[in-house]
Amino acid sequence: MSKEYKGCFITIEGGDGSGKSTLTEKLAQEFTSRGYTIVKTREPGGTPLSEKIRHLVLNPNTDFTICDRSELLLYLASRLQHIEEIIVPALREGKVVICERFNDSTIVYQGCARHLGMSYVEELCALACNGLATPDRTLYLDLDPEIGLHRIKSQSDRELDRLELEKLQFHKQVRQGYLQLADKHPERITIIDAGQPQEDVYKAALQAVELFKLKNPS
Amino acid sequence: MSKEYKGCFITIEGGDGSGKSTLTEKLAQEFTSRGYTIVKTREPGGTPLSEKIRHLVLNPNTDFTICDRSELLLYLASRLQHIEEIIVPALREGKVVICERFNDSTIVYQGCARHLGMSYVEELCALACNGLATPDRTLYLDLDPEIGLHRIKSQSDRELDRLELEKLQFHKQVRQGYLQLADKHPERITIIDAGQPQEDVYKAALQAVELFKLKNPS
Repeated sequence: MSKEYKGCFITIEGGDGSGKSTLTEKLAQEFTSRGYTIVKTREPGGTPLSEKIRHLVLNPNTDFTICDRSELLLYLASRLQHIEEIIVPALREGKVVICERFNDSTIVYQGCARHLGMSYVEELCALACNGLATPDRTLYLDLDPEIGLHRIKSQSDRELDRLELEKLQFHKQVRQGYLQLADKHPERITIIDAGQPQEDVYKAALQAVELFKLKNPS
Repeated sequence: MSKEYKGCFITIEGGDGSGKSTLTEKLAQEFTSRGYTIVKTREPGGTPLSEKIRHLVLNPNTDFTICDRSELLLYLASRLQHIEEIIVPALREGKVVICERFNDSTIVYQGCARHLGMSYVEELCALACNGLATPDRTLYLDLDPEIGLHRIKSQSDRELDRLELEKLQFHKQVRQGYLQLADKHPERITIIDAGQPQEDVYKAALQAVELFKLKNPS
C-alpha cells in the first residue's frame, strides 16, 4: 500500500487506442466539478529529467548502445523523479492525482517486449518505488488490440498489413499481461470494457473510483 | 552467486587514497605473467552509455533536478550496461575481470551519503543485477580515511581544514559501511590492511585471490 497521504492516486492503464487520455480528461472534469483538486500527469515523462532520459533512450547511435536492463532502469529513474517531484507533493497536499500509465505499463510492456519477465519487472518496480507511491486504484481499459490499432489509424475499413499484424501479436501479449496483472491485484485494478460506448466506459470508471470511496475534497 | 562463467570476477573496493588502482595494476601484471587474460575496468564508467549518464548526473541545472533515488537508478542503469557490454562477455570468454568499485561502492556510498539505507541499496543492486555478475572475490582495502585523504593530498605534514574534517566524518562512515559489508559477506570479501607497506598489501591480496583457487588459465 501507498504511504498514508491525504490525497488519492489513480492510474489509467491500457493498450494503444484504448481511450486513456479521454477517460483521464472526463474523470478530471468530473472530480474538479465536485471540488477536488486534480493533477493530471502521464508517463513516460512528467519532469525535465524524464525528457533527458527519453532523449537518451530514443537516440542511441553506433557509438552507444543501451541493453534492455539499462533501459528498464533508466525508465525507473525517470519514474522516481516523477514520483518525488510531482506525484508525492500533490498527494501530500491532498490532491487527486490521475496518471496515464505507471508501473503496470512497465511490467507489461518491458516484461513482454524485452522478455525480462513480468514478475521480475514487477518486483524491481516495487523495490525501486519503495512504497512511495502505490496507486490507490487502477482502471485498466481492456480492448481487443485490433480495434485499438484501427481506432488509432482511423481506418477501420481496411485490413492490417504484415508489420501491423506482427505488432498486433505483440499487443495481444500486452493485453494478456494486463489481464494477468488485474487477476493478481483485484483489490487495486478494475477491468473496464473499453469496447463499449464511451459514455458507458466513463460510467464504469466513475463507479470503480467511487466504490473505492474517494475521500471528500479537503 | 554469479552465473557459471569460465572466467573469474574480482572487484577491488576501498575509500579514496586506499590504493585500488595500484593494486589492480599489480594483480593484472601478475596474472598476465601467469598466462591469464585480464580485463581491467572501473566504475562509474566503462561504457559510452555510462559517460552519458555521468554527464546527466553531474550537470543538473536549475531547470532540471535529480532526486537521490533517480540518481541511484541512473548509476544502476550505467552498471547494467557495463555488465552486459564488458564484464559478462569477458567472463564468458574465460577472462579474469578486475573491476575497481562495483555494487559494494554503491551500497556504502549511496547508503551513507544519500541516507537511502545500506540494506535497501544492497537489495536493489542485487535485484537489478539479477545474478548476472556477482564478484567471485572482493578485496577491500581498509585504511584510516585520514591517511587516505593525506595520501591524496600528498601533504601528510599539515592538519586537515574544516571542510576536510567534515569530509573525514563522511569517509569514516564509508569505512564503517565497508567493514559491515565485509562482516556480512566473509565468503566473498577479504579485508586487507591498506596501511601496511605496499608490498605486503600486494602479498595479502594475492593470497586472498589464490586462496579462492583461481582456475588455471584456459
